[in-house]
Amino acid sequence: MSEKIRGVLAPVVTPFKSDRTPDAQRLLSHCRWLISQNVGLAVFGTNSEANSLSVEERLDLLDELVAAGVPPDRMMPGTGCCAISDSVRLTARAVKLGMAGTLMLPPFYYKAVSDEGLYRNFASIIEGVGDPRLKIYLYHIPPVSQVGISLGLIERLLDDFPGAIAGIKDSSGDWNNTRAMLERFAGRGFDVFAGSESFLLANMRGGGAGCISATANVNPAAIDRLFQQWQTAEADQLQNELDAIRAIFQKQPMIPALKHAIAHFSGDSVWITVRPPLVELSPQQSKQLIDDLVAAQFEMPGLVVYA
Amino acid sequence: MSEKIRGVLAPVVTPFKSDRTPDAQRLLSHCRWLISQNVGLAVFGTNSEANSLSVEERLDLLDELVAAGVPPDRMMPGTGCCAISDSVRLTARAVKLGMAGTLMLPPFYYKAVSDEGLYRNFASIIEGVGDPRLKIYLYHIPPVSQVGISLGLIERLLDDFPGAIAGIKDSSGDWNNTRAMLERFAGRGFDVFAGSESFLLANMRGGGAGCISATANVNPAAIDRLFQQWQTAEADQLQNELDAIRAIFQKQPMIPALKHAIAHFSGDSVWITVRPPLVELSPQQSKQLIDDLVAAQFEMPGLVVYA
Repeated sequence: MSEKIRGVLAPVVTPFKSDRTPDAQRLLSHCRWLISQNVGLAVFGTNSEANSLSVEERLDLLDELVAAGVPPDRMMPGTGCCAISDSVRLTARAVKLGMAGTLMLPPFYYKAVSDEGLYRNFASIIEGVGDPRLKIYLYHIPPVSQVGISLGLIERLLDDFPGAIAGIKDSSGDWNNTRAMLERFAGRGFDVFAGSESFLLANMRGGGAGCISATANVNPAAIDRLFQQWQTAEADQLQNELDAIRAIFQKQPMIPALKHAIAHFSGDSVWITVRPPLVELSPQQSKQLIDDLVAAQFEMPGLVVYA
Repeated sequence: MSEKIRGVLAPVVTPFKSDRTPDAQRLLSHCRWLISQNVGLAVFGTNSEANSLSVEERLDLLDELVAAGVPPDRMMPGTGCCAISDSVRLTARAVKLGMAGTLMLPPFYYKAVSDEGLYRNFASIIEGVGDPRLKIYLYHIPPVSQVGISLGLIERLLDDFPGAIAGIKDSSGDWNNTRAMLERFAGRGFDVFAGSESFLLANMRGGGAGCISATANVNPAAIDRLFQQWQTAEADQLQNELDAIRAIFQKQPMIPALKHAIAHFSGDSVWITVRPPLVELSPQQSKQLIDDLVAAQFEMPGLVVYA
């Protein structure tokens, strides 16, 4: 049995052409850079504008990345949709392509749904995919999805599908919740990824598997360094340095800010394009972002200048 | 120019077979019954579990209904998705099929998005469809979508796309909001539909166009009677009678309750099937529902017994 994926992953931002169609070539360049920085690829996460892409657009991008040589065992695409039929289709493709796992949102249109209903959703997907290679990482992000994954739901899924339920990304922003997941489930081979590098050191000390973080799109090497060195005397200092960079991005709307930074450091301005309902940074926001990054001596070494 | 659709519409519940695949034949039977009760068809609304269906499943059902003779000028399908590419595809099909309009959710994954971002979403869809026959009814349902349609956004869209922006369904549950829409926009040919029959009489008195209500799936004739007779002396009494029936359904989870009532009065038990994350009524809930309906002498006359 192969090793499960661990470490730092980026919810890879999805580049669009100026007409807002997905740009497979720029995505490939960015994925290659991230892989070169030892960061895995959680394509189609929240920061990827995944839900602003049709299922077909996502399937096409997955196929193109793998066909171009991106290693599938470093990929954990988001495959959880509102419709079970969509989730099964996307997840089955990811499994067929040999990906390390899939990051799975709960269905997020109806609110205040029951754990029984969410259990049936995940059970139906597991049965619909019907492949023993399937590894699901649950995606708990109540600030956005407004539908969460409770501890009781995790326990029931782990009891019934121990092979398929591989772990979780906890983007609750609530360390007490992450700690409870570690205490209750890490001993059962359930891999807990922090939802940002803010909790990376705490998560590793608590027995976690790494983090999946927006800012790994722009600051991958430094985040990976903490993952590699979390047991050293420098770990707290490395965490502080990561926090300072993250704070700069968190002053702005995150997804447009990530894209703006990539555009700036690559000199490739089309990278700023987002799909509605998101909007690009305003001139004031982008000036503030770049001023802050320059003041922090922030760089993105090795980033491919595409254009 | 043809008359715009007015009156009472049902967000048609979507029947599933016992394997949870969409059941086109039962949907057709239910649509025919609703049409016979003078109720229009807002298929693929919230109560239709629309977001639990893939875009392909929705396209197939639209095609099948029209091919079977359901009148497209009595249809207002929901076509607003998180991905613009999906919204364009669904909306274009509805327009091509000659439907009266489309009911359009805003993209609902990202929260706290700007009116600018929502404006770009609707503008992109209008331009992507590129058909002068397009009539969009905005769908304001913040309790579920968590992303609303502000008065300022309506004004901007009406200013820029007066032909395409035809009206709104207001499911905020806030009469002050509905009244503000009527006061500001009804004079510009913007048709305001109340989100339930609870506000049907008030909406008609304020210059509205009707209502689009969950319970029109089960109580269509009585709701249409109030629409027809809202200017008569009996109107307040009719409103009170509608409220009493609606209150029975609102004691239970609405969508499973609607399906349970249809199953009960048609004798066709497969109708109770819902897709996760929803769950069917519990035995206690279903007993309470039927007891309450029997006590109220509620009936669904003419409902086709399918099985």
